[in-house]
Amino acid sequence: MWHSDRVPKRVDHQERRREIAEALFRIAAAQGLQAVTLRAVAAAAGISMNLVQYYFPTKEEMLRFAWQRIAELGGERAGAGIVEALRTGDERAVLRAYLLGVLPTDERGRMLCAVQIAYFAVDVTRGGQDPDQEALLPHLVNALTDQIRQAQARQRIPAHLDARLEADTLATMTAGLLTGILVDTYDTDQATTIIDYRLDQLFSGIRAAAP
Amino acid sequence: MWHSDRVPKRVDHQERRREIAEALFRIAAAQGLQAVTLRAVAAAAGISMNLVQYYFPTKEEMLRFAWQRIAELGGERAGAGIVEALRTGDERAVLRAYLLGVLPTDERGRMLCAVQIAYFAVDVTRGGQDPDQEALLPHLVNALTDQIRQAQARQRIPAHLDARLEADTLATMTAGLLTGILVDTYDTDQATTIIDYRLDQLFSGIRAAAP
Repeated sequence: MWHSDRVPKRVDHQERRREIAEALFRIAAAQGLQAVTLRAVAAAAGISMNLVQYYFPTKEEMLRFAWQRIAELGGERAGAGIVEALRTGDERAVLRAYLLGVLPTDERGRMLCAVQIAYFAVDVTRGGQDPDQEALLPHLVNALTDQIRQAQARQRIPAHLDARLEADTLATMTAGLLTGILVDTYDTDQATTIIDYRLDQLFSGIRAAAP
Repeated sequence: MWHSDRVPKRVDHQERRREIAEALFRIAAAQGLQAVTLRAVAAAAGISMNLVQYYFPTKEEMLRFAWQRIAELGGERAGAGIVEALRTGDERAVLRAYLLGVLPTDERGRMLCAVQIAYFAVDVTRGGQDPDQEALLPHLVNALTDQIRQAQARQRIPAHLDARLEADTLATMTAGLLTGILVDTYDTDQATTIIDYRLDQLFSGIRAAAP
């Protein structure tokens, strides 16, 4: 009986923390990360300041949890497409799923990306030393490199290409497309066209033809 | 005599505005854009609040001037290399100068880029509607497209490539490298290697060989 009492309670706690993180996202997306305080988040979440502090004794702990949650949601957002692509064993589909997974496709995605940029801006002004935040781009580059090497081993991508440099070009291009979407220079369709153009080049081994 | 009285005075005014912008940059780079107030900038510039308000009646006008100054400084930073490259008539050198001109190469460059990201984050949380800020990426894409078309006309880049899409891939990749440098995922040398790798591919018309 001890376990059945305990498990639902722990789930609730985690759910409550996530609700608080969602309130934080709404504030950060609308007013920036500097507007985030325990008090403002409590108000936005419709709960007491005491309850917020029960879960997050300090603002820093709340911000750290919310950042991890953003990364987790980003992973979930991209994850389904990646898992699906991995099942096909088609490296081009896997690379495409990784890259498209970075881009926002709806209003919620845009909001989460805006919050990510807000974290990024704060991190940069502090000297770019937050190890949690630095991990996202290298992680993507490593995943892409693995897929490119695998496609090279199966002779789908020319062996003389530098897998790591190709991954660097794809990952940074997609990071730039993400920011381009947030400032409305590109829409998601245009970004997808650009990604497909580069993947066509990579997999054809010859220069892609103009449409 | 009227002109000689007047001209230096106007120069001083512009110089004073730029000093105020520099004080704003220092605050924004260290604490983010939300820490920028007329009072804080006056203190950082070592001048009176009244004098700041003489030049900038509102915080918004000060922020707008500082943004234009950042763009101007970015243009100056890249400009010398671009003018030099244009003189050679070598499109590859011009493209390279445009792209490397985006990247920070020293501490001051990093500071200005950090401030740019801070502006960007504020812009994004407001919905990405600031026409001044949106202009930077399209401007770069247009300049790159022109150079690629010119190189295609001179048969230095294969004619079947889509100049516009190639420009999109280069500009967004470089925007991603800029943020990668700010979070220390890449240093400037690595970013330069990645840019050269892509330019080699573009100009060779065949796939670049691994080093």
